[in-house]
Amino acid sequence: MSTAKLTINLDALATNWRNLDALTTCETAAVVKANGYGLDAGRVGQALAKAGARNFFVAAAEEGVALRRAIGAGPGISVFSGHMEGDSKLLREFQLTPMLNSLDQMLRHFEVLPGHSFGVQLDTGMNRLGMEAAEWAAVRDIALGQQPVLLMSHLACADEPNHPMNAQQLQTFIELTNGLDVPRSLAATGGLLLGRNYHFDLCRPGIGLYGGLPFSDGLPVVQLDLPVIQTRDLDVGETVGYGNAWTAARPSRIATVAAGYADGLHRALGAGEIGVFAGQTRCPVVGRVSMDLITVDITDLADTPDHLTILDEQQTVDMLADAAGTIGYELLTSLGARYARSYTG
Amino acid sequence: MSTAKLTINLDALATNWRNLDALTTCETAAVVKANGYGLDAGRVGQALAKAGARNFFVAAAEEGVALRRAIGAGPGISVFSGHMEGDSKLLREFQLTPMLNSLDQMLRHFEVLPGHSFGVQLDTGMNRLGMEAAEWAAVRDIALGQQPVLLMSHLACADEPNHPMNAQQLQTFIELTNGLDVPRSLAATGGLLLGRNYHFDLCRPGIGLYGGLPFSDGLPVVQLDLPVIQTRDLDVGETVGYGNAWTAARPSRIATVAAGYADGLHRALGAGEIGVFAGQTRCPVVGRVSMDLITVDITDLADTPDHLTILDEQQTVDMLADAAGTIGYELLTSLGARYARSYTG
Repeated sequence: MSTAKLTINLDALATNWRNLDALTTCETAAVVKANGYGLDAGRVGQALAKAGARNFFVAAAEEGVALRRAIGAGPGISVFSGHMEGDSKLLREFQLTPMLNSLDQMLRHFEVLPGHSFGVQLDTGMNRLGMEAAEWAAVRDIALGQQPVLLMSHLACADEPNHPMNAQQLQTFIELTNGLDVPRSLAATGGLLLGRNYHFDLCRPGIGLYGGLPFSDGLPVVQLDLPVIQTRDLDVGETVGYGNAWTAARPSRIATVAAGYADGLHRALGAGEIGVFAGQTRCPVVGRVSMDLITVDITDLADTPDHLTILDEQQTVDMLADAAGTIGYELLTSLGARYARSYTG
Repeated sequence: MSTAKLTINLDALATNWRNLDALTTCETAAVVKANGYGLDAGRVGQALAKAGARNFFVAAAEEGVALRRAIGAGPGISVFSGHMEGDSKLLREFQLTPMLNSLDQMLRHFEVLPGHSFGVQLDTGMNRLGMEAAEWAAVRDIALGQQPVLLMSHLACADEPNHPMNAQQLQTFIELTNGLDVPRSLAATGGLLLGRNYHFDLCRPGIGLYGGLPFSDGLPVVQLDLPVIQTRDLDVGETVGYGNAWTAARPSRIATVAAGYADGLHRALGAGEIGVFAGQTRCPVVGRVSMDLITVDITDLADTPDHLTILDEQQTVDMLADAAGTIGYELLTSLGARYARSYTG
């Protein structure tokens, strides 16, 4: 057994959902795109449905199919990318609700799946997904005649609470949707934390469920333990790993652990000041992160551990992401397929 | 259909193997760890076995199991991480050959699986995997008595042909193995390209098979096409994506395509000068790469394409990796599970 062990705490996930839900008086849905932020959309969806979530969001129809198979009929599943060519059969068979992003998508939907549930995504300034104001003005009455289940938009700067873009997008969203008597959603995790003005009828947290910032009160959901393959003693001046990137400045004991950048532990981590943990004791990663292996300085440990921990409540997803020069969202969704995964709760 | 399409050219893969094989007079094996560098070890293994490869290398016993199921009995499958606790049953049932890295592993192997095929990995200075010289001196005669099938080591700096570490590791490998009458292997792709002195009895290219540097004559193996979800027209001064990171300096047409960092297109790409292609025409990526989406400036295109290409012979894995501040090895092994994959050849 030389694969690393990824433990996913579904109780912590459900607690995060409940704690976010408690911050709102509206419905709280859950974003489980990118395979549940890398943690298995099916398992995540089941746990959140049990906790009380009744609506889920995915990026693509194909993701909706996998989720529907896991959580069964009943909960709503919405698709951010809308109704793409080739999606119609999946949307119908698996009761998926596309968030229509353009006139093209709307025409396709009304023609191919008349009467089938849909929402409309509006652009309020991010210029990534959703109808522009002029486009919406042109089709709004037709769309409303077909009874959309949701009008939604997405904030570009919600992780920066003081960014003026937030209020600007809020104002635009109000202008595009006021008085239309259709449920509305603007906020993901960041927007939910901006306060009630941003909540409307439905919040749809993603990253906060999984223990990531900007939800600083979130519980860590993942733990990642790396088995020690072997250890060796180095003399002063000996080097470790690719490019001889690290040189022993003292007599050192080095452990080689099983996981690397092919497992989503970014190669950039090797250039940072990152550690792994034996219990409470931090051991520095030394040398470059390679594809399947990481080398660690365990000189200060009294005993050789059988594993070292790189992600847990001591070293969170965001701390590791920061060391790799990225964000928790990317670190989480990069976690690879080679781990032995177990689910608690 | 809003998932991106990854096309893997198995003919190009097989050609790369044959062209590397033609540079040697020894046996040429194939490294298919990390799920065949992210391209499916089973499909890759089948194609390379058909091309003539008779020996394969994986990182962990679990990877060997998946490979054996795909390629059947016959070809050799070696495991770099050796014989870990809990591996014995897998090694026996799936005829996997561990490369023993330590005295601990050797004792385990001889006790639990006496007579079962094994090799020995020796450390020649990388200090990552393999027995140290003193350890090897102590157990060598016992090991030789059990008839190892391979003595191997790994170069730390083979991608830098002029690095003095190469000659130093070569010399150490010769000292540790000369006159022992056991087949030897030192070279992966980089070592193979260093010349005949480094070849011994078996070369084991990895990255070169998949079209990555340092094998500059390799054929590209992957093509990645991203479907366009929608387009929009921007006025001067409008911004795109998270953090308003990009601002239109001219009236611009923006396409949103389906793929993001959750698919292994690193977030760091958004900070670089990266483009995607409509046929031969390069269109700049603008704004931040988000989890499931990338935004592209298609102002200079006459027509709206239904997809844009981010990886092909025009823009290789190494070019994309360079823009993300990493190496082709990481880019390849990060390619995600959400793609619609097809195999040609």
